[in-house]
Amino acid sequence: MSNAHFPSRVTLVEVGPRDGLQNEARPVATQAKIELIGRLQAAGLTEIEVTSFVSPRWVPQMADNTQVMAGLPRQAGVRYAVLTPNLKGFEAALATRPDEIVVFGAASEAFSQKNINCSISESIERFAMVCDSARKAGIKVRGAISCALGCPYEGEVAPERVGWVASLMKDIGVQHVGVADTIGVGTPRKVQAALAAALQHFPLHEVSGHFHDTYGQALANIYASLELGVHTFDTSISGLGGCPYAKGATGNVATEDVVYLLEGMGITTGIDLPRLVQAGEYIRGVLGQANGSRVARALIGQRG
Amino acid sequence: MSNAHFPSRVTLVEVGPRDGLQNEARPVATQAKIELIGRLQAAGLTEIEVTSFVSPRWVPQMADNTQVMAGLPRQAGVRYAVLTPNLKGFEAALATRPDEIVVFGAASEAFSQKNINCSISESIERFAMVCDSARKAGIKVRGAISCALGCPYEGEVAPERVGWVASLMKDIGVQHVGVADTIGVGTPRKVQAALAAALQHFPLHEVSGHFHDTYGQALANIYASLELGVHTFDTSISGLGGCPYAKGATGNVATEDVVYLLEGMGITTGIDLPRLVQAGEYIRGVLGQANGSRVARALIGQRG
Repeated sequence: MSNAHFPSRVTLVEVGPRDGLQNEARPVATQAKIELIGRLQAAGLTEIEVTSFVSPRWVPQMADNTQVMAGLPRQAGVRYAVLTPNLKGFEAALATRPDEIVVFGAASEAFSQKNINCSISESIERFAMVCDSARKAGIKVRGAISCALGCPYEGEVAPERVGWVASLMKDIGVQHVGVADTIGVGTPRKVQAALAAALQHFPLHEVSGHFHDTYGQALANIYASLELGVHTFDTSISGLGGCPYAKGATGNVATEDVVYLLEGMGITTGIDLPRLVQAGEYIRGVLGQANGSRVARALIGQRG
Repeated sequence: MSNAHFPSRVTLVEVGPRDGLQNEARPVATQAKIELIGRLQAAGLTEIEVTSFVSPRWVPQMADNTQVMAGLPRQAGVRYAVLTPNLKGFEAALATRPDEIVVFGAASEAFSQKNINCSISESIERFAMVCDSARKAGIKVRGAISCALGCPYEGEVAPERVGWVASLMKDIGVQHVGVADTIGVGTPRKVQAALAAALQHFPLHEVSGHFHDTYGQALANIYASLELGVHTFDTSISGLGGCPYAKGATGNVATEDVVYLLEGMGITTGIDLPRLVQAGEYIRGVLGQANGSRVARALIGQRG
């Protein structure tokens, strides 16, 4: 048996409405997004990444950010997060009363340049202003470190880079870091090294894993993260969100698949799997797509 | 980091030509099977489950067993295995010179009855005759313990049942046992418990894992198996083979995805991933199907 001390409880941060739907070519009606969020929290999810406040020229899928936030079926005990890459986005978001905001950095210099048009250091300066404003408004700031395991332009990324970006984020007052394998190239021991680098700067309960399933490695990577005691993971309902760097490939790990793993290990999530599967079926129905969760396909196939 | 001592080398047993193609509704030409086997060994696979010697009334997909064995592109260092459920099958197989034979039992009484029409104890008696004949012919016998983690009729299966079947197989002279999660319901700690039960009767190098990816758990289960030192796994090129118990669900774990995991962990497999991906593309082309390997889809999508 493994000698690891697995956490007894894990928190999943549902990123489907934001990270997932942002990658869908097809626009989704505001009301469908709100309905999805309602179904996700009814299934037991307590942290939901709702939308992002970026220019609709860059991300037209999130142009209805204010309307989605206004229509949120707010429920006690559920935290609603939004992405705010800069001060302008933060100010627009503030009026919609998010519980948390997310700033989105990278561990790869090339990705930072191509994705947000500035160097890593410049992005941190930009985030510092957002952090200051968030602190004054009493809003928690999460920092995402994208390309923490590999970059579509630079290839493999060293754990030291992840540690460096985590330290920069710590310095500007970011309260939580997410180690994100944006292109899904990571494998368990590399993931443990990347997380360990972040854990040098943040406590266990303020480090999360965000794993794409592009190469099918996400659940193995989550299991390896649990061995370090990491107990917060981003997941996406029905695996919403593809991979812009490999056509036809899978994107975010499916929430359903992670819940199945954790339940099978006797780890509490507070999530009702059948209701979760129904939420995934709802949004895939809206999109007219097959479900990307293997657990959902297996459970639905049994009934069918 | 994990305290486990991971093996430095892993052997993959390619079961696509048999376990995979047996589950395909569409018949595959004998020549295409032979071509596939040639491509698999060219990619570096050294153990291949070729076909089964069962009644063509039950498994018409394997009716060309003698022809496939006759046409094998035999290569030094590669072992060719065939399934022989009974003495009649073994005698037919013997003439085709397999390196190994496989007998197929179950850890679930209900599955044994429904799948091979006899109790577990009766199946062992039947296998005992096969083992005796194989010993005389100098052929190694592998025993598969299907439904080792769960059964479509009985639900969860206790590790003690796996240990019991392993002990029965040991008693009749089976030399290697495969712990098979036939319906893919297992999760890492349960898989470790099932393997540990088998390891009470067989040494580490004679216990293998066979995990279906129906619920997406296969790679996490393989990682957990590696933590026990288990270093032999059955895998199926491009994920060939569905799940007869859940329509539309995934079957065998894809060889490509396992090779990617192992390479990423610095574990030697002797397999050339690009050639492996091409072998998978070949057989999916023959079947006119999308590739079931996430690694293959990601690598092909990058090029495309």
